[in-house]
Amino acid sequence: MDPGHENQGSSSCPVYVHNPHLKTMKEDVLYHFNLGTSTHNLPALFGDVKFVCVGGSPWRMKSFIEYIAGELGLEDPKSEYPNICAGTDRYAMYKVGPVLSVSHGMGIPSISIMLHELLKLLHHAHCTDVTIIRIGTSGGIGLEPGTIVITKQSVDATFLPKFEQVILGKNVVRSTDLDTELAEQLLQCSNRLNQFKSVIANTMCTMDFYEGQARLDGAFCSYTQEDKQDYLAKAYASGVRNIEMESSVFASMCKLSGLKAAVVCVTLLDRQKGDQLSGSHQVLHDLQQRPQILVGHFIKSQLESSGKI
Amino acid sequence: MDPGHENQGSSSCPVYVHNPHLKTMKEDVLYHFNLGTSTHNLPALFGDVKFVCVGGSPWRMKSFIEYIAGELGLEDPKSEYPNICAGTDRYAMYKVGPVLSVSHGMGIPSISIMLHELLKLLHHAHCTDVTIIRIGTSGGIGLEPGTIVITKQSVDATFLPKFEQVILGKNVVRSTDLDTELAEQLLQCSNRLNQFKSVIANTMCTMDFYEGQARLDGAFCSYTQEDKQDYLAKAYASGVRNIEMESSVFASMCKLSGLKAAVVCVTLLDRQKGDQLSGSHQVLHDLQQRPQILVGHFIKSQLESSGKI
Repeated sequence: MDPGHENQGSSSCPVYVHNPHLKTMKEDVLYHFNLGTSTHNLPALFGDVKFVCVGGSPWRMKSFIEYIAGELGLEDPKSEYPNICAGTDRYAMYKVGPVLSVSHGMGIPSISIMLHELLKLLHHAHCTDVTIIRIGTSGGIGLEPGTIVITKQSVDATFLPKFEQVILGKNVVRSTDLDTELAEQLLQCSNRLNQFKSVIANTMCTMDFYEGQARLDGAFCSYTQEDKQDYLAKAYASGVRNIEMESSVFASMCKLSGLKAAVVCVTLLDRQKGDQLSGSHQVLHDLQQRPQILVGHFIKSQLESSGKI
Repeated sequence: MDPGHENQGSSSCPVYVHNPHLKTMKEDVLYHFNLGTSTHNLPALFGDVKFVCVGGSPWRMKSFIEYIAGELGLEDPKSEYPNICAGTDRYAMYKVGPVLSVSHGMGIPSISIMLHELLKLLHHAHCTDVTIIRIGTSGGIGLEPGTIVITKQSVDATFLPKFEQVILGKNVVRSTDLDTELAEQLLQCSNRLNQFKSVIANTMCTMDFYEGQARLDGAFCSYTQEDKQDYLAKAYASGVRNIEMESSVFASMCKLSGLKAAVVCVTLLDRQKGDQLSGSHQVLHDLQQRPQILVGHFIKSQLESSGKI
């Protein structure tokens, strides 16, 4: 263990990897981050990380680090927050104090590459007691646009709480459980903030934005408006209140690694009323701030209550 | 049809969309490109496009447009190639003469969002006779690193040439056929160039970079070196020579739209010999140029033989 690593006592929870081969490797190149165990002192760079926030858009993750720096009183006087992954354009990564902000692109495969390398990074850096939150955008079902959905269960396109992946050509099914206590804490935080509405509900995670989410405005569509509404009504009846494209593998991988994980997405539109994101740029931009505001407030209150700021 | 659109005679092939709902929409917002039919004159901006090149990395797609501009003698004297999608960070898009270069991120869902919007863009712009080529990177099987694989068939993780997706909660299977004549033309082009080796072979398209490709260096790995080698040997025996993460949905969607499509990926390593991309940055960078060089040469020769340059 890195001598610089903060000792949190016997109750601290490490970031688990489950791969016996890693121990036999002379170095580990985290290719899509342009980082590695031989080229970077990962414990020194990342050992103090307690909160990781991830989201699709690199611009949004930069904006989040600027926002959280302000909230925590850790602003850089020059307002410079360098991209730690500047040597690659695959992902962007920013850090301020105990908070790491990382982009993951769109869709399950893109976030899964990022998470494999992030979990190894946190493991190599000897991080403990890490909370990870995806802050994202989504389509809502039966909710006022701008409502935040804190995910209870991430379900697949048949509304089942599981993530299927193919390993060595065989299907493997993994759980998509998230931390129920963390979800509840985030909801209470939103209620205290009282700036927008948040709900705890199921999130459907799909492989496609158009046909996979019953949109009528893709390049291909072989179903009717009625078919679409039927499908969304079934989703609603099963407890789904929003649709996005990363939560299932995020929940599954974070659970395997022992991280407390939550998914906090704003709904940009009500899919029962439309498909297109034609709202003004400014309105959509403002809505996208909401998960940042909620999670920023949560992190600040957690650090305050533990006496760390 | 746009009056400025070049008339190519009765043999010209449009870009098909298969969605009756599109005709009823007052406007079409291509959200992830930050473009739209009300805000942009798509026929004027894109009507002359004949070649579309797509690849994961935005930096690579910018470098490709600079390269092809030089090859075609269409350099901007100020060397400025503005990102047409500058208002968003989801994808990057560049254009020079009849060539469009677009990034697609990593994985099937990410490229599928881009393709839905790209196919609609080409349709709205009344483009005809469009050839589309994915220029990417991949892991090779039994090939010298640096070899280019021109995809014969894109196969799934069980080596079958199909793409499965979920629509309204039901599995739909689509063909992943690519244009065999185009693949052959690209191979001949590579042979004439004589700068690196290219082969026509099957490409395996997976949902994950680590466990999905039998890597031993992810955050999780529950199989042995021997299991990995067995799986790769089976892939090889079925005709697979490289592995990437986008070709199946690319082939499937381009075929539905009537575009001539090819996948041209360089192999960055031989997966039977390792998993990590630990080569020097310069070596990997040089290898990534190869698909650009091959496809640049192909486009130039096509335009020359049709008297367009």
